[in-house]
Amino acid sequence: MSTELVVDVKKQVQAALEEVKKKTIENVFFVACGGSSALMYPSKYVIDREAKKIDAHLYSSNEFIHRNHNKLGENSLVILCSHSGNTPETVESAKFARSKGALAVSLTNVEGSPLAQASDVVLKYEWGEEANAFTTNYSVLYQLVFGVLKTIENNDKFALIEESLENLQQVHEKAAELYKGNAEDFGQMYKNENIIYTMASGANYGVAYSFAICILMEMQWIHSHAIHAGEYFHGPFEIIDQETSFIILLGLDETRHLEERALEFSKRYGKKLIVLDAADFDFTGVREEVKGYIAPLVLNYVLRTYADRLAEERNHPLSTRRYMWKVEY
Amino acid sequence: MSTELVVDVKKQVQAALEEVKKKTIENVFFVACGGSSALMYPSKYVIDREAKKIDAHLYSSNEFIHRNHNKLGENSLVILCSHSGNTPETVESAKFARSKGALAVSLTNVEGSPLAQASDVVLKYEWGEEANAFTTNYSVLYQLVFGVLKTIENNDKFALIEESLENLQQVHEKAAELYKGNAEDFGQMYKNENIIYTMASGANYGVAYSFAICILMEMQWIHSHAIHAGEYFHGPFEIIDQETSFIILLGLDETRHLEERALEFSKRYGKKLIVLDAADFDFTGVREEVKGYIAPLVLNYVLRTYADRLAEERNHPLSTRRYMWKVEY
Repeated sequence: MSTELVVDVKKQVQAALEEVKKKTIENVFFVACGGSSALMYPSKYVIDREAKKIDAHLYSSNEFIHRNHNKLGENSLVILCSHSGNTPETVESAKFARSKGALAVSLTNVEGSPLAQASDVVLKYEWGEEANAFTTNYSVLYQLVFGVLKTIENNDKFALIEESLENLQQVHEKAAELYKGNAEDFGQMYKNENIIYTMASGANYGVAYSFAICILMEMQWIHSHAIHAGEYFHGPFEIIDQETSFIILLGLDETRHLEERALEFSKRYGKKLIVLDAADFDFTGVREEVKGYIAPLVLNYVLRTYADRLAEERNHPLSTRRYMWKVEY
Repeated sequence: MSTELVVDVKKQVQAALEEVKKKTIENVFFVACGGSSALMYPSKYVIDREAKKIDAHLYSSNEFIHRNHNKLGENSLVILCSHSGNTPETVESAKFARSKGALAVSLTNVEGSPLAQASDVVLKYEWGEEANAFTTNYSVLYQLVFGVLKTIENNDKFALIEESLENLQQVHEKAAELYKGNAEDFGQMYKNENIIYTMASGANYGVAYSFAICILMEMQWIHSHAIHAGEYFHGPFEIIDQETSFIILLGLDETRHLEERALEFSKRYGKKLIVLDAADFDFTGVREEVKGYIAPLVLNYVLRTYADRLAEERNHPLSTRRYMWKVEY
């Protein structure tokens, strides 16, 4: 991978941490919309488990502004993300955060974008098939979050996560190669489905959420819903039958038991089950202590290949939209 | 309403607050599953907006245990709920909370149930058509939550909410009467739908979630998903067309703008829209300052009449299950 970009990402993260050091951060707000919000779910999981003092909250941008959380203030770090840097609610959220005295750190693919301009610190991430995983959104966010935990609370996992992320690209590629046949089968077998549920828990729930709302609903116009694997048994599981399809994710974090239980039940009463199990992947280069945190990133990467195969089989490119960016809203 | 039960509820809440006073509470965890979890969403909204110091977190019971939030400890108040008091994950959560030194306060309909036995304090709520709204789950939880805010932070809304809840039953009944025709139309017009989405934001999102997973998926085997009205424009809205049905809730809280925007867009591109607008209801007896917090309770009550009409038209009683309480899981 390009050493230059790696060095650049590390420099950017260090610059953000320098700003964090100047404040007394008591809580972190993760603020974004849609897929950019989904990518923050694992980071909330990390802070929930790792932080001794800092609290983490996650809100969709417009909810963040109007809910007006009473503890948002000068001791808050607000982490925002918008790929284009153009999402109006997220740009407004950055302004709102700063008006309350908070430190606004934004991730975006577009330097100089409105979000970049509205923020105290900007982290530019890479994107697309050429980009090395170390320089992409999930990785940059993790470097920031573990960096914050190290800076404020002396948490010891920053070096472990940085080393693991440097090796992430090869984990991604090996996992996608291993599941290549499965992805092709998925495209062929599920191309005519009207509804496909997704399911996960813990650090992986955001990946299920993203696939449901961004890939299936937005890009394929297929009905969907991300079901929390623990909530499954308290309502949603009554929907499963031989005809209803479920994508079930199994991660490697502390909630894996919930996902396994949901899968076990689904196998008994359902038939159309698409299972992605991170335990199948080769995590060479990823440190044992952070595997559970890294798993959702790999699941997300592999799922993207599922999306590609589905779009191909349905002859419905992932870029097709009828409303987004096309009509007023 | 029965003065005896009202006095009893108030006594129970005061007894819980006496226990709260003995501790130094820094955060509140809302822990339950399915519908019992959904009823806690408005309370998280309340704490987010009202609390100066206390943080609020909400997790499905099994996620709560396995995620193992690092700030759960002896300065935590864990509020749990299970209607039967029998939900294994929630009973385990109470034990887990107490093992960490937290104060476990549980709501249940069944005195002496396993959850009641596993908790430090038990609040028994009433249930069913005979029960006055003041004595039911949403109301008892609000009395507890506003009581905690008063006890710990001198928040001044406890008396306002108590007075408003004492008048809630009549608000419920008038609202249901006003929407009676709409509920009948809903049952007749939507009885053959395969999928019905629900949508809301802020204090009302939990009500949309509950209707989606408990009423539609669990009790009617109709596909569903509760879409956050702010997230709608970042993925889910691509699904709407003339054939796709949406129940859209409009509350009275600070996020109402999000719900209005979602409705306005949906009107342009959709046709099958079921709208429940709390602004139509007569809130006499509810104090202006807490109307936004009370609205989801009324929306929930009215939606239950929608569920009744739908079940009736579909000849599929709300009590029908194929897996829940019937098979192992």
